[in-house]
Amino acid sequence: MKRIAILGSTGSIGRSTLSVVESYPDRFQVAALAAGKNVSAAFEQVERWRPRVAAMGSEADAEILRSRLSRAGISGTDVVHGPAGLVHLATHTDVDFVVSAIVGVAGLEATYEAVKAGKTIGVANKECLVAAGELITAEARRQGKPLLPIDSEHNAVHQCLRGGRMEEVERIWLTASGGPFLNTPQSDFSSITVEQALNHPTWKMGKRITIDSATLMNKGFEVIEACRLFHVPPAKVQVMVHPQSTIHSMVEFVDGSILAQFSVTDMRLPILYALTYPERIHSALRYPLSSLRHLDFSPPDMNKFPCLRLAYEAAEAGGARTVALNAADEVAVAAFLEGSIGFNEIPEIIEDAVLASNPGKLESIAKVLEADAEGRRYAQERILRIKKSVSPRATSVV
Amino acid sequence: MKRIAILGSTGSIGRSTLSVVESYPDRFQVAALAAGKNVSAAFEQVERWRPRVAAMGSEADAEILRSRLSRAGISGTDVVHGPAGLVHLATHTDVDFVVSAIVGVAGLEATYEAVKAGKTIGVANKECLVAAGELITAEARRQGKPLLPIDSEHNAVHQCLRGGRMEEVERIWLTASGGPFLNTPQSDFSSITVEQALNHPTWKMGKRITIDSATLMNKGFEVIEACRLFHVPPAKVQVMVHPQSTIHSMVEFVDGSILAQFSVTDMRLPILYALTYPERIHSALRYPLSSLRHLDFSPPDMNKFPCLRLAYEAAEAGGARTVALNAADEVAVAAFLEGSIGFNEIPEIIEDAVLASNPGKLESIAKVLEADAEGRRYAQERILRIKKSVSPRATSVV
Repeated sequence: MKRIAILGSTGSIGRSTLSVVESYPDRFQVAALAAGKNVSAAFEQVERWRPRVAAMGSEADAEILRSRLSRAGISGTDVVHGPAGLVHLATHTDVDFVVSAIVGVAGLEATYEAVKAGKTIGVANKECLVAAGELITAEARRQGKPLLPIDSEHNAVHQCLRGGRMEEVERIWLTASGGPFLNTPQSDFSSITVEQALNHPTWKMGKRITIDSATLMNKGFEVIEACRLFHVPPAKVQVMVHPQSTIHSMVEFVDGSILAQFSVTDMRLPILYALTYPERIHSALRYPLSSLRHLDFSPPDMNKFPCLRLAYEAAEAGGARTVALNAADEVAVAAFLEGSIGFNEIPEIIEDAVLASNPGKLESIAKVLEADAEGRRYAQERILRIKKSVSPRATSVV
Repeated sequence: MKRIAILGSTGSIGRSTLSVVESYPDRFQVAALAAGKNVSAAFEQVERWRPRVAAMGSEADAEILRSRLSRAGISGTDVVHGPAGLVHLATHTDVDFVVSAIVGVAGLEATYEAVKAGKTIGVANKECLVAAGELITAEARRQGKPLLPIDSEHNAVHQCLRGGRMEEVERIWLTASGGPFLNTPQSDFSSITVEQALNHPTWKMGKRITIDSATLMNKGFEVIEACRLFHVPPAKVQVMVHPQSTIHSMVEFVDGSILAQFSVTDMRLPILYALTYPERIHSALRYPLSSLRHLDFSPPDMNKFPCLRLAYEAAEAGGARTVALNAADEVAVAAFLEGSIGFNEIPEIIEDAVLASNPGKLESIAKVLEADAEGRRYAQERILRIKKSVSPRATSVV
């Protein structure tokens, strides 16, 4: 029986994880659930799963959850809150496996401490690898515990890597749907609307990741994640546009063989893989191979999608550069979504913020959080200048 | 240093193996070479590789080779001949790895004895798995030595299987180019010419295998080979038409993940894989993934290509049925190539020969050879009846 903690239990990955756990009651047990602000969802989850520990973001929300549980006569679940509560939950002795799925930097410290405490981690939080990847993967190596990727691309790479040894890998090929603007001329990018950008061709996801898919920044983050997770330089990670998103990624070995992974586009599959690794267990998630007809591929256009180039450069530089990339992207995407900046200005803001940050290693999660705050501040100031100026384009020469 | 014996050294696989060996002089050494009738080619190979043993099919050819070597002042190579010579060569103490690439049943006994002697085998000979697969794979399991497939499909499957355990395999998917008649209406099959049938879209191969690709019998043989090699029932092996032959095969796991293998269509790649397994070493055989654009797939049409159905049925029945399938196919293809029968009559002859043979296990290579001779005789008689009849179609009611 694997005892699971879910950091981010009321989010999309958290809910998918609980759906997987539900299908295999003999294998998995929910030991701990950490939510953010959604007390109602957290209450329902605790009522259903009766974990040993539950966490809310704030003390106030933790108090509300406690009294609702008490009124419902539910006992046996300690309710904690805040960063310290999250660390307590993620490193709890009753936990074997931690699903790290809190969006943003809030889950970084708890994930890092869970790795240090020898837990096996299923990584679904981008920041764990993009911002704190060097720290977290180094610690996982020290502990001799795997970091199991829970996103379709890195999960696919992890599967393909079983076909050889790491030193036998020539290149990792991440596939990209190409987003909604794959065939849009670059000259039209300044007039792209929020609605157009939120219309992702293959996956239904949150707003930020959908915009990140449209700019290819999401693929850029995945390049960085692949570098950190599999300890390869950026030059060994290639991106290939594959609009159907059927092949989730590929690994090319030194002998010239390439392994690729296919599956349905359902997050429960990589979650199940991570939870059961090194075993595979039966699921109903079948890809209908008999009805497969066409797969298309093309190389990505880095001029049209500069975010991808920025991510390669940040991956190469490392340290605060990848932190700033992620922080500035979050700020820039939010500004685009609220109509403050154009689609084509997203990469400009990120590039400035990245160049203002320091390359080189960060020694602690605290330093990562500082760099994150700095990147955010820089991007916000930059956006304010765009808002104030009559012509947004003029700011690029300030 | 891996010491290699090549059974069938002057054939296509034999020459490709020597080309691989040539590229890695620090890793491989040619310990033994067995040719059939081509004394000149055998002489050149012995001159170049100086193996410990060489074999020719007949005593006369062995004598010619001996005297040519002697005249050239080449010593240190024992020249043997015939079935006993081949067994001596394949089981020689100076041999670690045997590439079994003699076309037809002539290499069966030597391969079986090599397995018994604890050698690792690279299997390129169809008959080893189609006709004698049950015997040879059972013996390899007893010896705890791998049978490494040297053909692109099973080699691909072998690679994909590394992504999980055998009990985690849901299905094996063999890809098929579909041959030159993929889009030809079945009503035109009776008028297919030898020239049309020899025009394979993706691979350049020998005549028989090219016709076998056109009838899909080659894919049928591969279904049987997959069943024997990977110990799965025919229902777990599926065929998928994929005209580009880029994906060489796939494995679907119980969790819903599918792994696929790509590479250039060059036999040196599976040979290198088999020779170095479980390692992978660097080669120049690169698939140009950046220029990959489209892959197409469709299900095979078993009505149009009855040979594929016959192979499934023979795989299910086992024993002499698969032996007869192969033997009758060889005879029928030869008859088609010499103009004695029509393309559409190939499966009819094979079906009759298979149904005339006995299902159930064969206990020895001698029994396999008997069943092979019987299948051949049956098919030949059947073809003679076609030749004698005024209308070939009338024979089907005899």
